[in-house]
Amino acid sequence: MSEQHKPLVTVYGDGQLARMMQPAAAELDIHLRVLASAPDKSAAQVIPDVVLGDYHDLDVLTAAAEGADAITFEHEHVPTEHVEALIADGLNVQPQPSALLYAQDKLLMRQKLAELGAPVPRFAAIESVEDARDFAALVDGHVCLKARRGGYDGHGVWFPSAKELEPLVEELLAAGTPLMAEEKVALTRELSVLAARRPSGEVKVWPVTESVQRDGICAEAFAPAPNLSPELAERAMQVGIKVATELGVTGVLAVELFAFATKQDAGCIIASASGAPGAVVEEDIAVNELAMRPHNTGHWTQDGCVTSQFEQHLRAVLDLPLGSTAALAPVTVMANVLGAEEDPQMPMPQRVREVMERYPQAKIHLYGKDHQPGRKIGHVNVVGEDVEETRGIAHDAAHFLVYAQWA
Amino acid sequence: MSEQHKPLVTVYGDGQLARMMQPAAAELDIHLRVLASAPDKSAAQVIPDVVLGDYHDLDVLTAAAEGADAITFEHEHVPTEHVEALIADGLNVQPQPSALLYAQDKLLMRQKLAELGAPVPRFAAIESVEDARDFAALVDGHVCLKARRGGYDGHGVWFPSAKELEPLVEELLAAGTPLMAEEKVALTRELSVLAARRPSGEVKVWPVTESVQRDGICAEAFAPAPNLSPELAERAMQVGIKVATELGVTGVLAVELFAFATKQDAGCIIASASGAPGAVVEEDIAVNELAMRPHNTGHWTQDGCVTSQFEQHLRAVLDLPLGSTAALAPVTVMANVLGAEEDPQMPMPQRVREVMERYPQAKIHLYGKDHQPGRKIGHVNVVGEDVEETRGIAHDAAHFLVYAQWA
Repeated sequence: MSEQHKPLVTVYGDGQLARMMQPAAAELDIHLRVLASAPDKSAAQVIPDVVLGDYHDLDVLTAAAEGADAITFEHEHVPTEHVEALIADGLNVQPQPSALLYAQDKLLMRQKLAELGAPVPRFAAIESVEDARDFAALVDGHVCLKARRGGYDGHGVWFPSAKELEPLVEELLAAGTPLMAEEKVALTRELSVLAARRPSGEVKVWPVTESVQRDGICAEAFAPAPNLSPELAERAMQVGIKVATELGVTGVLAVELFAFATKQDAGCIIASASGAPGAVVEEDIAVNELAMRPHNTGHWTQDGCVTSQFEQHLRAVLDLPLGSTAALAPVTVMANVLGAEEDPQMPMPQRVREVMERYPQAKIHLYGKDHQPGRKIGHVNVVGEDVEETRGIAHDAAHFLVYAQWA
Repeated sequence: MSEQHKPLVTVYGDGQLARMMQPAAAELDIHLRVLASAPDKSAAQVIPDVVLGDYHDLDVLTAAAEGADAITFEHEHVPTEHVEALIADGLNVQPQPSALLYAQDKLLMRQKLAELGAPVPRFAAIESVEDARDFAALVDGHVCLKARRGGYDGHGVWFPSAKELEPLVEELLAAGTPLMAEEKVALTRELSVLAARRPSGEVKVWPVTESVQRDGICAEAFAPAPNLSPELAERAMQVGIKVATELGVTGVLAVELFAFATKQDAGCIIASASGAPGAVVEEDIAVNELAMRPHNTGHWTQDGCVTSQFEQHLRAVLDLPLGSTAALAPVTVMANVLGAEEDPQMPMPQRVREVMERYPQAKIHLYGKDHQPGRKIGHVNVVGEDVEETRGIAHDAAHFLVYAQWA
């Protein structure tokens, strides 16, 4: 196919999510361009067409969009007014601000989901200490406080005690942080359902994933979610389809879900998936967060599905027919590689070598990022037959990449 | 991982085989550099680090090798004396000329394999018309004539009749073509076994593949080879391991095999795999050709195996532990997209869209190459349960990409 016919997709963002679109782009002969803040950023290392600049600058955004058949994001931070200006100029930016809004503002998201009849925890806008006090009374003090905008990976989320609540709200509001509160759910585990939708309306959904969060950051994911009742899996997938459709999402949509026990015997957290993934309980679900881009809980699709979330996102934003989301194995486990407090002396390539030696089945994905404590610098996918065995391998491999020691 | 620690691999060659190393390189954070003859070549389109130049020029080869932890090939045409000069300079070129020789010269290959006890058809050096006459008498006229060097995809191979043989030999020798002859095998189908070996000695082998050739070019591949007896599969894999080991290959080795019926009832071709892949016969094998690089009959590993041949090649040349070669599905079928006599009017992206619409399970791989009749411009992989059904999808998808019409 000659160069002038290639579909061209511009991605605003230079992190690992943009980087991981490159394999699918190369395979499908899609010309990928990234807007990067520096030439050594994760995505810029592996993609030839890099525009350097700041995504807060409309001129930069416009330059990076030149000739693109579709323009998309790997984060939610591009200013909405700029996106609207690009669209007014006739550019095909996907997802559109009308959808993206609900991934950017948690209060609007809750309101919209409630309106759609999707399961959500009780919630309220918090514009004063009185609002907080009233809401706490309503939910027996089980308050989760959230910044409406800008949170990620546990940032912008608080679980204050009764005593802490009012001063915290006062402080945050004084600092200009728009707030909402929701009922702290007695969760048994976290699930996510990933869907992709294209402008023509087609929606495809992957098998439901269970994830384990540590300190608010995704640490592991298992797919399909172990021991999930077929009814609940179906309900979760229908939530994904409904949200993608009703919000008019284009591209990958991740719906993070709380699973909670329907019999709340102990009144609070009943079982932790981080200790026992797939423990069978009578479960129900509520929506936690939305993301409109490839998502950490979907990284397993790279090695465990016919179509990865990265390929699907590219297909969706170009309004191409979506690929099969069938799983390739009874279970796929993903374990994140999160920078340790101190980076071990052993260089990363040597750690990779050791992991390859012990686990020939481990699929190692690195993002080309320097070490920082807690930073996502890679992940490991493993396909297998048995959840515990597969999890052990993925966990062990990721652990070694972090600590240069076997767990 | 900081830039200065990344393993760096230089590939001499700019075609699809180098291009398809890029996804694995990005995932493993291996810095890939290609030597390309022009910036729009297949591999150069998707790899940021491109050195432009002619691989016949030692200075160019040296410049492209700067700082590389390993230097490898995607074809066999880099002059041997240059490779030897690079190695004398202390560069880690893999595979080494001492191994590559046997993929470059078919007579030396036959002699070496015979010496190793690997199954080969009867053969002879042809340095005169008399040599040809004697050999024809020995094999009852079943002569396959081959150029010792430079052949590929059916070029440099002839099947002359008794009458044609002597004038052809005279003409080719007069033109300076070094020749060999081998007995034309009454083949039932073509198989290939792909192995990878790293300098430390580790060898891994993929499931045996059946391929269908048309006009000397690989058209389809099925893996694992259908209806292959476990004994013969094991024997084929042992041939792959033995050849890789004894020749000291580094990287991927493809051993193309003839399968032939051990009861030669009809005296000649007994069954054609192109009509009935996997027809059960009493089979034996002989080695046809060797290639020391990723190979068309291994493209199915991209979507059908834990570790693709492209990832494995990179691991091998860097002397990293090799990845699992386990298959992900009961069968994977690859169908090549070979340029039609005339390129259809429908642009390739539109053909891709139509195929995606009909076959969401098809994995489309395009090489970013302009149309030329018979040129390899892409392939389609499909994983499935049933050989015929899976083959039908792969064939149909590839056919549409070629002709813009359903078969």
